[in-house]
Amino acid sequence: MKLKDVAYRTVPGIEWLNRYTLKDWVADVIAGVTVALTVLPQGLAYATLAGLEPQYGLYSAFMGGIVYAFFGSCPQVTIGPTALLALITSHHTGFGLTSGPDYAILLCLISGIVEFLMAILRLGALVDLISLPVTVGFTSATAVIIGTSQLKGLFGLRSDSGSGFLDTIMSVFSNLDKIRMADFSLGLVAIFVLLFLRKLKDFKFSNKRKFLKSMSWILVTGRNALVVLISSIIAYYSCKNTASCPFILTGNVKSGLPSFQVPKFETNIVSANGTAVHQNYRDMIRELRTSMIILPIIAVLGNVAISKAFGTSGLSATREMLALSLSNVCGSFFCSMPVTGSFSRSAVNHASGVRTPFGGLYTSAFVLLAVAVLTPYFQFIPKAALSAVIVSAVIFMIEFEVVKPLWRCSRRELLPGAVTFVMSLALGVEVGIPLGVATDVAFLIYRAARPVIATTNGITYIVIRPKQSSLCFPSIDWVRCRISNALSSYGSVPVVLDFSTVNDFDFTAARGIGILHKELLNVNVDLILMKVSNKMTVILREATNIEFHLIDDLDELESTLDQSLEGIFDTYHLIRN
Amino acid sequence: MKLKDVAYRTVPGIEWLNRYTLKDWVADVIAGVTVALTVLPQGLAYATLAGLEPQYGLYSAFMGGIVYAFFGSCPQVTIGPTALLALITSHHTGFGLTSGPDYAILLCLISGIVEFLMAILRLGALVDLISLPVTVGFTSATAVIIGTSQLKGLFGLRSDSGSGFLDTIMSVFSNLDKIRMADFSLGLVAIFVLLFLRKLKDFKFSNKRKFLKSMSWILVTGRNALVVLISSIIAYYSCKNTASCPFILTGNVKSGLPSFQVPKFETNIVSANGTAVHQNYRDMIRELRTSMIILPIIAVLGNVAISKAFGTSGLSATREMLALSLSNVCGSFFCSMPVTGSFSRSAVNHASGVRTPFGGLYTSAFVLLAVAVLTPYFQFIPKAALSAVIVSAVIFMIEFEVVKPLWRCSRRELLPGAVTFVMSLALGVEVGIPLGVATDVAFLIYRAARPVIATTNGITYIVIRPKQSSLCFPSIDWVRCRISNALSSYGSVPVVLDFSTVNDFDFTAARGIGILHKELLNVNVDLILMKVSNKMTVILREATNIEFHLIDDLDELESTLDQSLEGIFDTYHLIRN
Repeated sequence: MKLKDVAYRTVPGIEWLNRYTLKDWVADVIAGVTVALTVLPQGLAYATLAGLEPQYGLYSAFMGGIVYAFFGSCPQVTIGPTALLALITSHHTGFGLTSGPDYAILLCLISGIVEFLMAILRLGALVDLISLPVTVGFTSATAVIIGTSQLKGLFGLRSDSGSGFLDTIMSVFSNLDKIRMADFSLGLVAIFVLLFLRKLKDFKFSNKRKFLKSMSWILVTGRNALVVLISSIIAYYSCKNTASCPFILTGNVKSGLPSFQVPKFETNIVSANGTAVHQNYRDMIRELRTSMIILPIIAVLGNVAISKAFGTSGLSATREMLALSLSNVCGSFFCSMPVTGSFSRSAVNHASGVRTPFGGLYTSAFVLLAVAVLTPYFQFIPKAALSAVIVSAVIFMIEFEVVKPLWRCSRRELLPGAVTFVMSLALGVEVGIPLGVATDVAFLIYRAARPVIATTNGITYIVIRPKQSSLCFPSIDWVRCRISNALSSYGSVPVVLDFSTVNDFDFTAARGIGILHKELLNVNVDLILMKVSNKMTVILREATNIEFHLIDDLDELESTLDQSLEGIFDTYHLIRN
Repeated sequence: MKLKDVAYRTVPGIEWLNRYTLKDWVADVIAGVTVALTVLPQGLAYATLAGLEPQYGLYSAFMGGIVYAFFGSCPQVTIGPTALLALITSHHTGFGLTSGPDYAILLCLISGIVEFLMAILRLGALVDLISLPVTVGFTSATAVIIGTSQLKGLFGLRSDSGSGFLDTIMSVFSNLDKIRMADFSLGLVAIFVLLFLRKLKDFKFSNKRKFLKSMSWILVTGRNALVVLISSIIAYYSCKNTASCPFILTGNVKSGLPSFQVPKFETNIVSANGTAVHQNYRDMIRELRTSMIILPIIAVLGNVAISKAFGTSGLSATREMLALSLSNVCGSFFCSMPVTGSFSRSAVNHASGVRTPFGGLYTSAFVLLAVAVLTPYFQFIPKAALSAVIVSAVIFMIEFEVVKPLWRCSRRELLPGAVTFVMSLALGVEVGIPLGVATDVAFLIYRAARPVIATTNGITYIVIRPKQSSLCFPSIDWVRCRISNALSSYGSVPVVLDFSTVNDFDFTAARGIGILHKELLNVNVDLILMKVSNKMTVILREATNIEFHLIDDLDELESTLDQSLEGIFDTYHLIRN
């Protein structure tokens, strides 16, 4: 029995399998195939976005489903190529020869390993550092970058130079005269149809029109496949009959299953003068640099966002990271680029009524079947149609609707978001995200360094109470100055520093309290500490060697003061006069 | 009258001058000359430490006194060359030709400008980020590095290669056979005498022995000058009589006042193959890199530490930074290397009874006199004596005594200190300090991300109260999970989230509370928020569009619960069974 528990824990899929019903099977197959119909066009498109040949998108689309079926725990999650990861991958695929896939596959392997380390070192918490404004900032920036990058495909421009936001804008504008009207019209129509079909899901049919309702459901969930299929048929006929094809087509997609091979740790790139330059593993690692950290964090963030969205409570973040890690590591042996949970396909999965993570297995089976059988037909897919698929997917990643409530209630938080958005556009998400997080952290530090302090002055004493729970190294000097200032306006009555709200206290702060004690002693003012915890008492003693006057509440102080009130008033007048 | 106030405010020196008495003058002259007798040997030594010719130490020793006399406000502070800044400067002076002084002078100018910016942008607060353990870590590391670097001088080794800690250790050990006994003995005796004379100040003379007391005071405060003078006399005679001098001497110190000249923004260095390579301002800035930020921060930190030590309350940090900035900017036009307040000389100043910042003026006058007249005699100063001056100054910067109390009361804080110490030794203070601060900041973030939460369960509700004051983006998901866990062990009674201690709240956290609300709704649990401030209510509304159940205290909740107790218990049993 114990072995079974261990097996259940490590491979939750076994447990699903154990109580798998026919009903589950039917639901999963339908959902799985629907997702496959989405991932096929998306995979082709995202591979192109990543700067790879289209088949790599398909190679990336099956391993995640298989792994997640056994090791994942959220039925809706579908792991595969995504626009965001494709964009990051594209930074490393433009060096010619076979280096593009080599870099993408190596990045996939390394991401898997980094995700594994994040899981076992419990670094998944790093995702907590990415606040909502930063998330909105970088997803919006990514959507803008990706959307722009598809302008070329939509306009039928062939030039492939520059993947950055500004580069693309410049190149499109300088080539406006070369726009191919056929591609442009096809793309525009496709986008229009896709957005319309997406809108259809909000339309409420009366219960009588069951047929219309299920038709509309099929159109909504299968819209990507449908648009690509129809535009391919158009392209097939218009390119068969005439010698000059009006569309730019995807071209040959390599047929057959991907071969099993160990990811390469060396590759060749084309140098500036056209010769091949050998890159060893060090050169490759140096080229990948920050992507090796940023990409896994974004991948984990994506998965977390999906499980949050479907509100599946009780998910183990560590197990999810392990499943993601395994998908990438295993995928890299079958020529996959980096993968993570796809928000849009998970939504399709959910809408198609998936019941267990095994849905992914049927997606994978269908994708493999397509790779084996359908690839000859993929060559007729117009690039403009794929661009339309991408544009109509990423357009909803631009989340400007969050700006307005933020402006109304917490303007300060717009700054990290804006920093992330602008810097991601200008220098890429791998720069934008760290800068956005740094902005958030700077605010955190600022609040720790400049606590809000409440000052209450009674007649015979002043009570000073920090509203923050931390009284540590960045704030103590400032607090000390504030107390000195408070003194100069209230005169020389005893000062009570109330620790009741303080929870973090350190050696530096204790030294600061010691200096304050001396400063106040110089002007004959008593410093009294209230509600100091035992731990803080020890730190105070070790740091200062001063016997502080400690009290538990103000009553205690008042009874003392009553006894020595005259003495204090004497001193008080002595100093004031 | 108003003009006078403005003048007083900008140039506090005028105010001092206005009520300057003869007594002040006498005290200041005595203190000023005493400080000068300390800064002369120290300046020669620190210039050598910085990798410059000795006269640059003297050039750096007069402008600070003049500027500070008029713009400073703490009588004890003496601004000039220090060991720490010399060490940082030394990283940029080893490239041959005239590049050494050119880099040092440019660094001095830039530091002044950065300090000016820190003053007007109120960035002096950056110093607050340097906690006590980090301060101890880097000053101790500096002391070790400087002490080690003086081993060569003490041992009479001529090789000048490598200024790093490990380089020096290696080079000394591989040259142990070349130790020159004369230098070594002189150095050891000098150190012994210096430490003994320093110890003398702790000796209490009875009031009768006034003569002995003042003699000992002279010996203590003038010990550096005395040791250098005596060893120079020994060297002068032993090198005059014999052809082979037993000591390595300072050699020619350029005579005459430094010329006024604009700091150079270009220079020449020696390349690997011995030719001169021209460096323009970009190359120079690139070479100075992080030093341009770290050096001013350390300089400001030094000044802050001195004013803290002398407990002068009411000092304006901004004005102090402006005085420091001006000392560097003006100094750079007279060939100064970077300067800041010197702890040891400020102590001498204090002990010599300085009364106003004008003491610095007399120091400067004496230094200028020495530069003009005494330089021919400086050539006889043995290098070992200068090394002894440095070693016996920095040995007290190693502050291991703080480790023990830290270990006893707050071990966690040893980590930032250790990181700073080890990394400063291994890679230099400009790497060690940022890493130490990063360690401290990581703890800050960790505490913000993982607040302590108190859970109280009554019979009819659970109260959850964060002990930290911040409920923000890094912690909200974790808090949400904790609440879910609390639920699973306490059953499905209403959950009260107590905001009474919460002071920082943001949009991300509000969204998290929204998700929590939905999660709890799914399992039929009421989420009740207690003592939410108006500002937080607005954020909650804007972020979630949920009408939360808000209460001001538990009594309010209990009266509601009494009315609907049966209903709740019904639900409760429904869920449990």
